[in-house]
Amino acid sequence: MKALRYTKIGSAPEVVEIEKPTPGPGEILLKVTAAGVCHSDDYVMSLPEEDYLAQQYPLPLTLGHEGAGVIESFGEGVETGLQIGDAVAVYGPWGCGHCLNCSQGKENYCTNAVAEGIRPPGLGSQGSMAEYMIVDDVRHLVPIGDLDPVKNVSLTDAGLTPYHAIKRSLPKLGAGTVAVVIGSGGLGHVGIQMLKALSGATVIVLDVSDEKLELAKHVGADVTLISDESAAGKIRELTGGVGVDAVFDFVGANPTIATATAVAAMEADVTIVGIGGGSATIGFGSIAYDAAVRVPYWGSRSELIEVFELAKAGKVDVEVQPYSLDDAPKAYEDLHAGAIRGRAVIVP
Amino acid sequence: MKALRYTKIGSAPEVVEIEKPTPGPGEILLKVTAAGVCHSDDYVMSLPEEDYLAQQYPLPLTLGHEGAGVIESFGEGVETGLQIGDAVAVYGPWGCGHCLNCSQGKENYCTNAVAEGIRPPGLGSQGSMAEYMIVDDVRHLVPIGDLDPVKNVSLTDAGLTPYHAIKRSLPKLGAGTVAVVIGSGGLGHVGIQMLKALSGATVIVLDVSDEKLELAKHVGADVTLISDESAAGKIRELTGGVGVDAVFDFVGANPTIATATAVAAMEADVTIVGIGGGSATIGFGSIAYDAAVRVPYWGSRSELIEVFELAKAGKVDVEVQPYSLDDAPKAYEDLHAGAIRGRAVIVP
Amino acid sequence: MKALRYTKIGSAPEVVEIEKPTPGPGEILLKVTAAGVCHSDDYVMSLPEEDYLAQQYPLPLTLGHEGAGVIESFGEGVETGLQIGDAVAVYGPWGCGHCLNCSQGKENYCTNAVAEGIRPPGLGSQGSMAEYMIVDDVRHLVPIGDLDPVKNVSLTDAGLTPYHAIKRSLPKLGAGTVAVVIGSGGLGHVGIQMLKALSGATVIVLDVSDEKLELAKHVGADVTLISDESAAGKIRELTGGVGVDAVFDFVGANPTIATATAVAAMEADVTIVGIGGGSATIGFGSIAYDAAVRVPYWGSRSELIEVFELAKAGKVDVEVQPYSLDDAPKAYEDLHAGAIRGRAVIVP
Amino acid sequence: MKALRYTKIGSAPEVVEIEKPTPGPGEILLKVTAAGVCHSDDYVMSLPEEDYLAQQYPLPLTLGHEGAGVIESFGEGVETGLQIGDAVAVYGPWGCGHCLNCSQGKENYCTNAVAEGIRPPGLGSQGSMAEYMIVDDVRHLVPIGDLDPVKNVSLTDAGLTPYHAIKRSLPKLGAGTVAVVIGSGGLGHVGIQMLKALSGATVIVLDVSDEKLELAKHVGADVTLISDESAAGKIRELTGGVGVDAVFDFVGANPTIATATAVAAMEADVTIVGIGGGSATIGFGSIAYDAAVRVPYWGSRSELIEVFELAKAGKVDVEVQPYSLDDAPKAYEDLHAGAIRGRAVIVP
Repeated sequence: MKALRYTKIGSAPEVVEIEKPTPGPGEILLKVTAAGVCHSDDYVMSLPEEDYLAQQYPLPLTLGHEGAGVIESFGEGVETGLQIGDAVAVYGPWGCGHCLNCSQGKENYCTNAVAEGIRPPGLGSQGSMAEYMIVDDVRHLVPIGDLDPVKNVSLTDAGLTPYHAIKRSLPKLGAGTVAVVIGSGGLGHVGIQMLKALSGATVIVLDVSDEKLELAKHVGADVTLISDESAAGKIRELTGGVGVDAVFDFVGANPTIATATAVAAMEADVTIVGIGGGSATIGFGSIAYDAAVRVPYWGSRSELIEVFELAKAGKVDVEVQPYSLDDAPKAYEDLHAGAIRGRAVIVP
Repeated sequence: MKALRYTKIGSAPEVVEIEKPTPGPGEILLKVTAAGVCHSDDYVMSLPEEDYLAQQYPLPLTLGHEGAGVIESFGEGVETGLQIGDAVAVYGPWGCGHCLNCSQGKENYCTNAVAEGIRPPGLGSQGSMAEYMIVDDVRHLVPIGDLDPVKNVSLTDAGLTPYHAIKRSLPKLGAGTVAVVIGSGGLGHVGIQMLKALSGATVIVLDVSDEKLELAKHVGADVTLISDESAAGKIRELTGGVGVDAVFDFVGANPTIATATAVAAMEADVTIVGIGGGSATIGFGSIAYDAAVRVPYWGSRSELIEVFELAKAGKVDVEVQPYSLDDAPKAYEDLHAGAIRGRAVIVP
Repeated sequence: MKALRYTKIGSAPEVVEIEKPTPGPGEILLKVTAAGVCHSDDYVMSLPEEDYLAQQYPLPLTLGHEGAGVIESFGEGVETGLQIGDAVAVYGPWGCGHCLNCSQGKENYCTNAVAEGIRPPGLGSQGSMAEYMIVDDVRHLVPIGDLDPVKNVSLTDAGLTPYHAIKRSLPKLGAGTVAVVIGSGGLGHVGIQMLKALSGATVIVLDVSDEKLELAKHVGADVTLISDESAAGKIRELTGGVGVDAVFDFVGANPTIATATAVAAMEADVTIVGIGGGSATIGFGSIAYDAAVRVPYWGSRSELIEVFELAKAGKVDVEVQPYSLDDAPKAYEDLHAGAIRGRAVIVP
Repeated sequence: MKALRYTKIGSAPEVVEIEKPTPGPGEILLKVTAAGVCHSDDYVMSLPEEDYLAQQYPLPLTLGHEGAGVIESFGEGVETGLQIGDAVAVYGPWGCGHCLNCSQGKENYCTNAVAEGIRPPGLGSQGSMAEYMIVDDVRHLVPIGDLDPVKNVSLTDAGLTPYHAIKRSLPKLGAGTVAVVIGSGGLGHVGIQMLKALSGATVIVLDVSDEKLELAKHVGADVTLISDESAAGKIRELTGGVGVDAVFDFVGANPTIATATAVAAMEADVTIVGIGGGSATIGFGSIAYDAAVRVPYWGSRSELIEVFELAKAGKVDVEVQPYSLDDAPKAYEDLHAGAIRGRAVIVP
C-alpha cells in the first residue's frame, strides 16, 4: 500500500510503497478514508536528529495523527459492538488505559505513556497517512456514522484540541462575557464555532490579515481585529477597561501571548494552545489577579465523542482543502507557506 | 399617587389613591416605569387568611415584585455612583445583606430574612405597582441603561428565576446534550432563549396546546411536544433511551413533574420551578441514578446583572402585554384565564 | 473449587464444588484472597422469581461483588503492566467501556450495559465468593500492593459507594459546614472516615442504638444522635436553624429519608444511598430551596483508585468480621440479624 | 488617640497623637483591640515617592489592614443586627459594593475601586493601628464572638489570603493528592493548617531553615524540606515522577517560583501568593500540561466568614507575637529582620 512517510531527518516526507499491515490480538485494521495535515507534524519533522531520537520516534515514520476510516478487520479477542465496515475516527493521544488519568479517559495526560513508550499514531507510532492503519485498541475508535470523513477527520485534533481548551473555560463564559481567539487557522476557526455553539460569550478574533479574518467572520466571530501591538488596547476599550473572560491563543508566539495576558480580566483563563515558541511571564503586577495561564495538550476520549456530537448537530464545519495521498507532500508545502484556508486533508 | 393594592383577603386587588412615599436614610425613591404581573402574586392572594397573616404580610399590600423605574430621589447617606434620573430595575428577593449567603449576593437564600421580617417588595413589602416605590438599599438596584423598561421589567423575576435554575445546570448542557422545558409561558419562554444563548443543548419544549408551543418555536425551541402522558415516552425515544440532561418544569404540577423525572438521564438535573402544587417521589428505582431534583427560588444579585447583560446583547426578548395601572386588575383576570402570551406588564 | 452460590430462588446460598474456570482471550483469572458480604446480595436473593429472571441473572449464581485476589493467569492478548502474582482488587460495576459514560470510567452509569447484558460479578455475572474468579478485562483491576485484602476488599463497594456519594458533595463541605451520616454500618462507618479525611465538615451521625453509635464515634464522628423522630429537630437546633450542608442516608427507609430532607439547608445535598425501600417527596415547601436530592449507584473507576489511595494513606480503616468460605452462609445469617459490626468478609 | 503612621516617604513609621475620628452617615467607629503587621505594609513603605503618589495613597497614613475591635458607635442610618460592644473583625479589601464582582462579595476584585479611589484601610485609607478606626460600611464587619482578637486578627489577611488561594484548589486536593507550601511564615503556617483541615492532600512544606520548618511541623506539615535547588527533584521523587496537585508559593521570589512550576503535575494549580518580586515563565515545554498558574489577591467577604468559622472550630491557630502600640515600630524592624515566628500583632 501507499504511505506518506518521514524517512530521513530534515528531509520532506515522501510517498512510498509499504506492506499492508495485519492486526495483532486486540488490534483493529482500518481502511483509511481521510487523514489530516497538522502543524504538529511539521514540529516533529523540524526536530534536530538528537531530539527526534531522544523521543524514540521510529524512522521511517508514517505521518498522520488525525485519522478516519472504515473497519477492515479485527485482530483476535476484540470485543466491541462495532462491525466490519463501520465508519470511525481515531482518538489519537494513546495512553496506558489504566493510570488515574487514563481511568477517566484523559489518555492525553497518561502518566505512564512516556515510560512505557506509548506514542500517538503519526507522532511516534505509525500514522494514518496510508491506505490502511492499525489502531491498538477499540477504545481509541469513535463511530462517526454518516459524517463525511474528509470534512470531519480533522476534528480528531483540530477539533478536539480547541474543544478541550474551551470546555475548561465554559464556566467562565456565561452571560455578558467576552472571549478572545487569536489565530483563525486550522484550530482557531473550529474553536470560534465551538464558542458560539456552547457559550454566551461575545467572540473577538485576532489574526494578521483581513483575509484570515474573513474566515473568522464566516464562522461566526462577533468582532475581528488585526493582531498587532494595538490590539490589546482596543480589546480593553471594548470591555470598558475590565478585560476579557478567556483568551485562546492558537498561535503561541511571544507577541500573541503578550496580547493574551494583557487583555485578561481578573479570574480569566489564558490558554496557550499554539506551539509558536513563545512564553508568558507571570508574576505580581504582570497579569490581572487570579487570571489562570495554562498550556493544554489535545483532549480526552469523552471530549472527542462530544466533538463529533457537535458535528452531527451541524454546529461545527471544518474548512477543508483535500489532497490525494500522492499530493500529500504538496499539502505540507502549502501549510509551510501559510496557504491553507482551514485544514488540509489527505484522501487516500 | 395611584397604586394597585390587595386590600382584603380573598378579594381582587384594586386601584387606590395613596400618599407618595418619602425615602428614609439609605433608601431610594423610584418613579416606576413598569411593573410585572406574576403567578406568585396570585399565589399570595390565594392564601387563606391565617396563612397570609402567619407570613406577616401587611394589608393593604401594594402588589408588584417585578419593578423598574428612574431614580426620583435619595434618602440621607446613600453612597452610589448612580444619579437621579438613572433608569434601574429592582432586585426583588431582599435579604439581610450580611449572612453567609447574602455576603455572596444570594439574598434569595438569606438565612435571616424570615427572622428579621425582611420581605420582597410586592410579596410582603410595598411593591412596584404604583406611581412611586421605595427601595431599601442601593445594592438592590441594577442599572438598565437604554433598555425599554416595559419590555424588560419582567426579567427581574420571569428572567431571573429561569436564569438561576438554568445557570446551575449549564455544566451539564454542553455538546450533544438535551434539555427539556415544560411550560412555555412567562418564565418558560424566557428560559428557552437562555438555554439557546448559553448552552449547547437541543431544547425540547412541552406545553398543552399548539398555540402555546407556537411561542416556544418562535423563541427558538428545537422540538415541541404536546405535554401529555405520551410525552415522556417520546422524549426517551428521541434520546435513544438515554434520557435528557436537564429538565426545567415551569408548571410544577404532578403530571409535569412525573414527566420531568421520567425523562431524566443518569446524572441529570430536574428543576421544579413552577409552583403548581405537585411533588416528585424520589427513591431507589423511581428515577435515574444520580439525577438531582431540586426546587429553586428566584436568583442572586449577580445573576440579575447577568440577565440584563443578556438583554443588552439582544439574546432575550420578553413577550409582553402592557396594561395601564387602571387596567391592572384586568391583567390579573387575564392571567387567571390563561390568556397572557408571555408576560403582562403594568405601565403607570 | 469451592464457591458460595445462590442456587434456588428464595433459598439461602450454599457452598458447592464447581470447576475452576479458565480465562478466555482478554480475561484474567484471580486466586481470590477476600470477598465482601453486602446487603445488595440479600436484595438480589429477595427478588421474586419473575423479577430475578427479568434481570436475566443466571442460576446458579456465585455471589460476591466485592473481590480481591492475586493474578493467577492471563488469557490471550491481555496487555498490561501487571504481573502474575500481583495483588489486585476488582472494580465491580462493569460497563461496555466505550459509551460516553464509560469513556470517562463511569462504568457504573454505562448506557449500554443493560442492552448488552453486561452485569457485575456476583450481581449477574459469576462473583468472587469462590477460590477463583474470572475478571473480564484488565481495566477492572486496581493494584492494591501491600494492603491487607481481608481488611480492604470491602472498599470496592462499601468504600467506593460512600466515596462516590461524598465526593460529589465535597464542594459543599468546606469550612464551617455540617454533614449528616445516617447509618453507621458497613458503608456508613467508612463514609464517616472519608468525610473526616477529605472535608472540613462537622460530622453528625445517626443510628438506632448506642452500640451502633459507638462505632461511629470510634471512627471519628463529631456528634452522635439516636435516629428517631426527634433527631431532625435536634440537628436544626445544632445548626442555629439553618440546617446542614449534606446528608448521606445509608439506610434509605422512609423515616430516615424524612429526617434527611427535613435537616437539609438551602442548596444542600441529600443523597439516598441505602436501598431501604423509602422515598422522598420533593416539591415547593417540602424541602429547603435548591437542596438537591439524588440516588447514586456505586462509583467510577478513578474513584476506586482514589479509595485505595485513602487506604494506603491510612485514612480509612474498615471494621471487618472474617468468615471462612465454608462459613459464608452464616455470614449472611448474621447480616440478616443485624449482628455484623462493620463488614463481613469471606476468606477462601 | 495614638496611631502608628507612615508620615514621610522612605522613613520608618512612627507613633503619633491624632484626633479620635467620628463616624459619618453609614460608617462605624471601632475601638481597636488588635491590628496585624504584614509584609504588604513594608511593600507600601518601600515604594518610591512617585509610585506612592501615583497610587493616591495619603500621607500621613495610619497603617494596619488587619483589624479587629469592638463597636464603639454607629454613624447615622446604619442598619444592622450588630450592637454597640460587639466584637468584630474588619474585611479589608473594600470595593464599590455593586459591580459584578462586588455583587458576589468579591470586593477584592472590584472593577470600580481604582477609578472611584476606594482603598483598603492601612493600604490607602486610614488603617487599624490606632486606638480607634472608622469602617465605611457594616458589610465590612464580621462578628467574631468570643474569639481572642489578638490571636485571630491576622486571619483577616494572613488567614483570608491563603484561604482564598487554597479554596480555589480544593477540588484538586482530594484523596491521594499532594500539596506543596513554600514558606512557613505568617501566611504559610496558616495555609498549612487550612490544607490539613479542608483537603485530603499530603502537605509538603519548604522553607529555608530547620527553624522555620519546625513551625511547619508544629502546625501539621506531613513532610518538610529545605527550600533549595534540590527540592524540586526530591518532590518529583516523592510523587513517583508525577508531580504534585497544587503549589502555594508564599514567597514568590524567582527561585521559589521555579521550584513551584517544576513540581506541578499535569492539571495542577500553581498559585503565587507572596510578593517576592519573582515571575514564572509559562510556555510549551516549560511546565506540565494544563497546570494553571495564577497570582491571587486577598479574598472575598464570604471567604472571611468561613475563615472565622475555621477559627471557631479550632482548626486554625495563628502563631502570634504581640507588641504594644508604642512598640509597633519595633515590630516592623523585627519583620524586616525575619525574626517573627508567625505573625506580629499590635495591641493598642
